[in-house]
Amino acid sequence: MRYRATLAYDGTRFHGFQRQANASPTVQEALEDALAQIGAPETGVIGAGRTDAGVHARGQVIAFDLTWAHTADDLQDALNANLPPDIALRGVRPARVGFHPRYDALQRVYEYELYVAPVRDPLRITRAWHIKNAIDAEAANAAAASLIGEHDFSAFGSPPQGDNPVRIVYEAAWVADRDGTHRFRIAANAFLYRMVRSIVGTLVPVGQGRAPVSEVAEVLASRERGRAGTTAPAHGLTLTQVCYPE
Amino acid sequence: MRYRATLAYDGTRFHGFQRQANASPTVQEALEDALAQIGAPETGVIGAGRTDAGVHARGQVIAFDLTWAHTADDLQDALNANLPPDIALRGVRPARVGFHPRYDALQRVYEYELYVAPVRDPLRITRAWHIKNAIDAEAANAAAASLIGEHDFSAFGSPPQGDNPVRIVYEAAWVADRDGTHRFRIAANAFLYRMVRSIVGTLVPVGQGRAPVSEVAEVLASRERGRAGTTAPAHGLTLTQVCYPE
Repeated sequence: MRYRATLAYDGTRFHGFQRQANASPTVQEALEDALAQIGAPETGVIGAGRTDAGVHARGQVIAFDLTWAHTADDLQDALNANLPPDIALRGVRPARVGFHPRYDALQRVYEYELYVAPVRDPLRITRAWHIKNAIDAEAANAAAASLIGEHDFSAFGSPPQGDNPVRIVYEAAWVADRDGTHRFRIAANAFLYRMVRSIVGTLVPVGQGRAPVSEVAEVLASRERGRAGTTAPAHGLTLTQVCYPE
Repeated sequence: MRYRATLAYDGTRFHGFQRQANASPTVQEALEDALAQIGAPETGVIGAGRTDAGVHARGQVIAFDLTWAHTADDLQDALNANLPPDIALRGVRPARVGFHPRYDALQRVYEYELYVAPVRDPLRITRAWHIKNAIDAEAANAAAASLIGEHDFSAFGSPPQGDNPVRIVYEAAWVADRDGTHRFRIAANAFLYRMVRSIVGTLVPVGQGRAPVSEVAEVLASRERGRAGTTAPAHGLTLTQVCYPE
């Protein structure tokens, strides 16, 4: 039977989600090791999003095929008991035949967290980007608005081989939190490689007044990867949700 | 000249604040290494609180003697540049002659964070204690109130050699936050070894209805270390503030 689950992890010590030939540990490896521990050594895991090294997840979605004699709750408990503490599964349940977390996804939602402070906060070093100059959320939001809609996002990332660089962004907005914290939330049908971090790295100078609001629309229209700002660090980024039909 | 500073750190990878013969790294070592890097290799650092392995700090206070030709802000920048990212100094400034962060402190404030959830949250494993059964904050608070005042706290911890076990607790209260998070805040003139974690481990069963509210007053009155509950894990605890006269 095919099962699906929602997955949360702290990406700090992982070389991203996807198993790799030359880098270990990855989240996928840890999941497949846990399946091996409960008696399914050849079971492969498919994930909705290939998060990079250091990127976190609250709402990653995975699927795997398994013959399991007990309840889905028992399966969840058994897997969580065999996963490292920085990974945990919720909502383990049977999926329909052929369910594919990546191909079936309608929308992915990411959040990027940063904070403005004169000195770094050691309790946030793996969670949020520390910047020193204040952000004008209104300017950053005006610039972010130009990303919404269907566009060729080549300026902000690379598509997988053979894929096209057009994506549909449904939502892109900053929320100012207490204590100089700003969160950027972005939802799209799918993202190019490093797209969210590249967008954040381009929006921050606008929010800080070092670039005009029009900069983001111009970079987008240029389709030139070299026009975007610095890629924001991975540790501020979290995959928060993946949406499916039904 | 004697300098003082406020210190924040993520205690996860440290064997506590204080330098030890057999365990490394410690926060004190990292500070003394940073002082050595800026040209003061023999400078010792004194801290207000000897936090245990895994315990965090937002408001630890330290002092050290240094001959420094530039401003205190320059000193802060130089030290932060030479400290690992999980430690940072704020408010570096000259202190009065003889200032001692531990002996001069009037009050220490600690916060303990825990959350109730069926499955652990991987993004909080180094920050908060995960428990599965709901907490009645009212019952936990009624029990905590019996700790306030001057008492012999032998049941909840050991004093350093030769010291007496009487401490004055000024504040001890739970605050329920969103999403099943509870924070316990406790202020005292000083604390015995592992006292806050032992108190939390005794209050939680009361909040969960597994022990009566009167349990905490009875354990306190017994002065028997064996009567207290399990010591709560270190990673939920943060030293948030140290108060001085003036």
